Amino acid sequence: MFELHKTAETTKARLGVLTTDHGKIETPIFMPVGTLGTVKSVKQDELISKVKAQIILGNTYHLYLRPGCEIIENAGGLHSFIDWEQPILTDSGGYQVFSLSDNRVLTEEGAEFKSHIDGSKHLFTPENVVETQRILGSDIMMVLDECPPYPSSYEYAKESMELTHQWAKRGRKAFLETEPKYGHKQAQFGIIQGSTYEDLRKESAQFITEQDFDGVAIGGLSVGEPTKEMYDLTNLNTEYIPKEKPRYLMGVGTPANLLHSIARGIDMFDCVMPTRNARNGQLFTLNGYINIRNAKWKNHQKPLDPNFPTDICSKYKMSYIHHLFRNKELLVLQLSSLHNLTFYLWLMDQVKERIANGTFHSWYKGKAEVLDTKI
Amino acid sequence: MFELHKTAETTKARLGVLTTDHGKIETPIFMPVGTLGTVKSVKQDELISKVKAQIILGNTYHLYLRPGCEIIENAGGLHSFIDWEQPILTDSGGYQVFSLSDNRVLTEEGAEFKSHIDGSKHLFTPENVVETQRILGSDIMMVLDECPPYPSSYEYAKESMELTHQWAKRGRKAFLETEPKYGHKQAQFGIIQGSTYEDLRKESAQFITEQDFDGVAIGGLSVGEPTKEMYDLTNLNTEYIPKEKPRYLMGVGTPANLLHSIARGIDMFDCVMPTRNARNGQLFTLNGYINIRNAKWKNHQKPLDPNFPTDICSKYKMSYIHHLFRNKELLVLQLSSLHNLTFYLWLMDQVKERIANGTFHSWYKGKAEVLDTKI
Repeated sequence: MFELHKTAETTKARLGVLTTDHGKIETPIFMPVGTLGTVKSVKQDELISKVKAQIILGNTYHLYLRPGCEIIENAGGLHSFIDWEQPILTDSGGYQVFSLSDNRVLTEEGAEFKSHIDGSKHLFTPENVVETQRILGSDIMMVLDECPPYPSSYEYAKESMELTHQWAKRGRKAFLETEPKYGHKQAQFGIIQGSTYEDLRKESAQFITEQDFDGVAIGGLSVGEPTKEMYDLTNLNTEYIPKEKPRYLMGVGTPANLLHSIARGIDMFDCVMPTRNARNGQLFTLNGYINIRNAKWKNHQKPLDPNFPTDICSKYKMSYIHHLFRNKELLVLQLSSLHNLTFYLWLMDQVKERIANGTFHSWYKGKAEVLDTKI
Repeated sequence: MFELHKTAETTKARLGVLTTDHGKIETPIFMPVGTLGTVKSVKQDELISKVKAQIILGNTYHLYLRPGCEIIENAGGLHSFIDWEQPILTDSGGYQVFSLSDNRVLTEEGAEFKSHIDGSKHLFTPENVVETQRILGSDIMMVLDECPPYPSSYEYAKESMELTHQWAKRGRKAFLETEPKYGHKQAQFGIIQGSTYEDLRKESAQFITEQDFDGVAIGGLSVGEPTKEMYDLTNLNTEYIPKEKPRYLMGVGTPANLLHSIARGIDMFDCVMPTRNARNGQLFTLNGYINIRNAKWKNHQKPLDPNFPTDICSKYKMSYIHHLFRNKELLVLQLSSLHNLTFYLWLMDQVKERIANGTFHSWYKGKAEVLDTKI
């Protein structure tokens, strides 16, 4: 499903194309997060026409609880339920079990947990999360894993990784023994763990690679470790993933994080940051990020950047956007979410252009520094 | 500014055109409410392209407090501040002083009040609300009035009406002695009061008419009185407004209210109902209204009405809309607000067509009954 078109010379940055039955995805790519079947505050048609999203993410944990598999199966799968005809990736639910639910109990069999909504008891196993994702009908599904917290002891990290590996084998088997439900193909990605320990990261990359998933994700990073450690471990992990597999760094990150990770060989990203931070008033721009709630924008009577193609940048006065934010007006959540996502996807286009014309390596570090600056 | 094109034969329904420097408005018309310079949850471009709004309303009380006159004047007026090039009507702030603020004190001079936000003290006078609306730069401004509560004693209603009349004279004078600030013309409407007393309503209609405002509004209705009383008093009031003046029934109402009031000679309406109720899950449809949060929609796997041109009706499955509502997803506030407003403006188009072809009188009562039904 993945064709590698180019690898940069000085960095490990790559250009590729992922093919699904719902369309092609040009990598490197950022995937907007649509937790409950909606990218918060953004309409599906604007995700296509304005954001230029090529693929969105759905969260299995959330969708399994609400509206539940029955409703989504009756609707004909997640694409049909949410009226989205482009590719969808779903995670396995593992991460949310560990971060959101109460009283989770890990056993070899799987992860038992209580719903964070009503306290009801559930069990995710490597096999049943494949089944759930068959019902969701995502183009790319993820295998069940455990994401250990940061920091974790070496012992805990090793045991956790070994459980993740057993689950990966069982999940892969369940995937290969079952069929899609809606007439379109599904792919399955494995997930590397190993916390911050280099030998575990290496072992996990090799083990996951051996299971011959359709793609390989790097999990367990961006959970509190220093940024340099995240970059180094990403760099280490991509050394051990065969170049013909797409590489997905889960839950990352800032615009600068994306540039540095692409330089280390990553093809795919997802993160709630552009939408969550938009709702808090943080807007990403070509020259750094701003907080629109700051009083400095109160009487700023011009658009932020007439040359950037979002309503927030080129249409409205900053004084108006500031006013909407200060008064918690719903309109601004749409505008800011659209803006930040458009910015992320625009950044990926810049990256592709620069990898294609050979200027990525001389550009990305300086650009990352600018994007990381508060203005 | 108003041309009357047709009056129906059996009812008092009228067709007309209001002309402003920001464009023409075909009446009967519904004006979406943009309290703080935004019609809640709806983008300006969609108000034009989807809702087909011809004019929106802004609230002087709210805009005066936030962002304040200085910011809006620096922006070049409200049209420029909110990036809206079509007509705007602003109320005088009187209604909000009485309904929202603390410690209001009415004197002959004006209405003293404390801000509902920070407790700061302010005074609205007939003169300074003209000045504020000069700064806002609305195409149609309203004169300061007192809206008495329902029920009011005859004595209170009469005194209140007399104060409203004094304010009307002073407000008209202030308007005629001042100039617009931004190069486009502004009009001013007077407001009839008189609570539910027929003789006061008649007296007020005559008094307000004598001041020769550019249009006449009926205030103080839809404040808790029985619907039949509202219709009867509206009918009484329109008897005393010269036919060449546009007639605006303030703060009304349901789709059925609109049809009945148009039959009684009303040309203009505003109400928060379509947007506020949208945010609570009430959707207006051709066959009555629904509450989308109701469990009956949970597994309803079809669009509500493929023939009605909103995303909610023709694009999405009801199960999805229900799911979004149950989970308080921001997307659905956009979709439902857009839907309800589009419905209101579509209804006004139906009305115009039927007044034009002479079928309004035989249609509106039955239609009002259908629209008032919960399905």
